[in-house]
Parts: sequence; C-alpha cells; structure tokens
Amino acid sequence: MIVMINGELKDSISVSDRGLQYGDGLFETIAVKNGECEHWTDHMMRLLAGCKRLNIPEPDIQQCLVEAQQLCSEQSHAVLKVIITRGSGGRGYAFPEIITSTRILSIHPWPSYPSINTSLGIHLHLCKTVLSQQPLLAGLKHLNRLEQVIARNEWQDSEISEGLMSDMDGHIIEGTTSNVFAVINGELVTPALDKCGVAGIMRAQVLQHANAYGMLVCEKKLTLNDLLNAEEVFVCNSIIKIWPVRKILDTQYKVIGDMTMKLMNGLT
Amino acid sequence: MIVMINGELKDSISVSDRGLQYGDGLFETIAVKNGECEHWTDHMMRLLAGCKRLNIPEPDIQQCLVEAQQLCSEQSHAVLKVIITRGSGGRGYAFPEIITSTRILSIHPWPSYPSINTSLGIHLHLCKTVLSQQPLLAGLKHLNRLEQVIARNEWQDSEISEGLMSDMDGHIIEGTTSNVFAVINGELVTPALDKCGVAGIMRAQVLQHANAYGMLVCEKKLTLNDLLNAEEVFVCNSIIKIWPVRKILDTQYKVIGDMTMKLMNGLT
Repeated sequence: MIVMINGELKDSISVSDRGLQYGDGLFETIAVKNGECEHWTDHMMRLLAGCKRLNIPEPDIQQCLVEAQQLCSEQSHAVLKVIITRGSGGRGYAFPEIITSTRILSIHPWPSYPSINTSLGIHLHLCKTVLSQQPLLAGLKHLNRLEQVIARNEWQDSEISEGLMSDMDGHIIEGTTSNVFAVINGELVTPALDKCGVAGIMRAQVLQHANAYGMLVCEKKLTLNDLLNAEEVFVCNSIIKIWPVRKILDTQYKVIGDMTMKLMNGLT
Repeated sequence: MIVMINGELKDSISVSDRGLQYGDGLFETIAVKNGECEHWTDHMMRLLAGCKRLNIPEPDIQQCLVEAQQLCSEQSHAVLKVIITRGSGGRGYAFPEIITSTRILSIHPWPSYPSINTSLGIHLHLCKTVLSQQPLLAGLKHLNRLEQVIARNEWQDSEISEGLMSDMDGHIIEGTTSNVFAVINGELVTPALDKCGVAGIMRAQVLQHANAYGMLVCEKKLTLNDLLNAEEVFVCNSIIKIWPVRKILDTQYKVIGDMTMKLMNGLT
C-alpha cells in the first residue's frame, strides 16, 4: 500500500487524529484505470459537500489532484482511497479552535472479483444487521462504519457477493458497499437515502444515464417485498460498476435484464 | 501526550488500521490518581465485553495492566485512554483471516473543569442532534462517535458544561460524554440503554452505591418532561464523577439535592 499523508509519503498517522479517535472524517473510493482517476470531479464534489455538512474545512482539491496524479500515474488498474479527517486536537469531542484537516491518499490493488459477478449476476445475502437512522449523516461516506463491518461479517460463503441492508422500518437501503436498484413495472427504482445510507457516485451515474436514456426513474421507499417482486435488481459502486443480481433468498431474477444491460453498456 | 502502541512507545499508527478506516474498535477513558487507574477492573471488564460483542479478539489484559502501570506510575492526576481496534487487514469491511488487535494506551492531562461544576452544579444544553438507535452497538464505548462530535459542537457558550441527547423517539439517553440520572418521586432513575447510549463505568458505580444505600433505583425510558419535573438531576462519568445539574432550559433544580449529595459523598 502506497500512502501519502498531507503530501508526504508515509503510512502512519498520529494517534491523536480525530479520524482514529472518533471516526471524525470522510472518505472516497476511486477506480484508477490507466493512471486516471475515474469520476474524479464527482468524488471531489461529494467530498467537499460532506466536509461542508460536517463543518470540516474544505481540503485543497487542487493539491489533492496533484497528489492523486503522482500516486496513480503508473497504475494501470488500482483503487485510490482518499480520507479527509478533522485532524488532531480539540477538547474531547469539541472541535479544535483551529482545524487543520488531515488528507490521506492510499493506493490499493484492484480487487479480483470473479468475472461471472458481472456476466451471470450475484447472490445477495439479506443482512440481519439493520442500519440506524441518522438524517444528519445520511448520504455521507463518513468514517463511522461499524454497522457495515458487522453486516459484512454475517456471511463467509464465497457464493455470496454482497449483503443487502434495511433500516429499522424494514425499508431496503443499500448493500454493505454498494447501492441497490430495482426495475419495478418498468420503472427504475432506488431507495431514498434521507435517513441512512451512502449516496454513491456510481448511483448518481446510473441515475444520470437512466434519465438520459429516457427511463422512468424514481427514488423512494422500497420494501423487501418490492425487491422480491421486481423484474430486475442490480447493485453498483465505483469499483464494480454494476453487478446484476441473480438471487435473493429463494427469488431468482432474469440475468441480465434489458434495463440493467443497457445501463451496464452505458457505464463501461 | 505519551502513547504506547502494542507495548511500544510511539505515537503514530498505520493508516491501514481499521480503527481509522472504519472506527472498528472500542475505548476506555480512565481517571488516574496518584499513579493508580481508578476502577481498572471495571474498565477492563467492559472492554472485554465490548470485544466479545464486536468479535474482536480479547486483548491481553495483564499486558495492558503492565503498560498502564508503566505509563501512569508517575502521574499524580491524569487521564488514561485505552483504545482497542480490530487491527489492520481484511478485504474491505470483511474481517482479516487472522485478527491481531491493536492496543493503544495514551496519557492526557487532567482536564481543568471549574470546581463550581461540582459545588454549584451545571447548566445542561438540550442537543438538537438526536442519537440513532442501534441495539447491536448500544451500551458500547465504540469508536464511531460522529454523533457526539456533532452534538458537542452545537454550543460554544462556556456557561454550558454538557449537552443532553435524546433518541429519535424523544427519550432522554445521556450527555455527550456522560450518563444522566434524575430523582423522580424519590426514586433514582436513569435511562435504559438498550437502543443507544454508552453504559458508563461511573453510571454502574452510581447504581451500585444507590442500591447499597437502599435507594429506590430504576432504569427506564425517560422523557424531557420527566427530567424537567424531577426533584434532582445529575450527570456522571469516570473523570468528573458527579456534576449536579442546576439548570435545563428554564427549569432550575435544587443544588445539591439530598440523594445527589449522598452519592457524591459515596463516590469520592
């Protein structure tokens, strides 16, 4: 793992950093192909919006780009993770008087997912771990991820590629590392993320493409029953792009459905 | 700040540590007086119980004690923070195949709270930030503390010493860094922490002392109205012990009430 912290090549961070102490920060997971960071601007816009909501001083995006290019230029296929924390200091939870955010860029190997995840679709596990509702944090890709850690470790079966998470009202929200879409009566539906969940960059891409294709698109509350009765289901994130879903519980889906296929082709 | 990581005197940690990446860990905040860690066994028991719930391998408590003694022996008045994380590794949120937890002990100066907090009581701010409900994490002192960070930064007024947090159902749960108690019709009441909140060591001490004194004691749901109509209110944690509450919104309380006083005397 190659790591750059505030522009310096090093891989360790002060214990006093609020990222460790409180999970007081945000992150982005970015696909790197042939030295280029995919959807760079979208990732940085989301990061800035997140900083604004959490009152973290905006990182220097231009500097971030310079560092990302330096780290990624020779990477043909890799993952860049960008973490911004509120830095060190402050008395307990109170912000420091002067906040100097910490900027961490790290390069990771491209994960070796089976290619059949894309071609034949995946099996989704239904997580027992339920997402808590916190509108103040909903949509953000913040560093408080214990719920996802617990949910992801509900299964070891390698046949299962992702876990589906609901909120306490029984509404489907997202995968542990992905957003979820369903085609219901010809309409492309994805859960509203006003109470919990991460508003993914690939989710936004899918919505944008679907709109451009003239598909009927809707963000709304979605139950498990809605999902089990859907014509098509898929999950997406910046790394995997789209994985069609073949199976949830005993429900089998057509893979690859027409709308899913059209979106997959559009996003490549 | 003096820091020891896995027994080594150093103050920085790998960026890959899951404590930073996901807030995947737990902590204890321990009062150190004349070289002794107060309620050491209680803190370690809670830490072990937390590790068990989160499936983090139990840290070596004996080793932890040796290190704590080494760090604290010459401290007349200080705070020891112990952090246990799930260490580094794993593919995304999935646990590493072999988990080697990270053990971080750090010594901090004793905070200089005004002595009138104890003698005259404090003014409590009512936080707009609401605690999310997550029974899987309720009671644990885990590293996902963004809600407390947001709540603590609702006020700057130095007249306010603590913020009171409710859950989304409007039940009072705790302070941002403390537990809360009320005397209602002669009974000592503290919020049930089955859906959110941290089950503090000093909270347990208060309950234990109250029982020993033959006080009527109850853990139950508590509304703001219950609190505003209480005879006495106080907050507690391992560092401050007990602070009587003088004021919430426009409601003034008798300071120091009889039961609060008895418990304060018992805990010194």
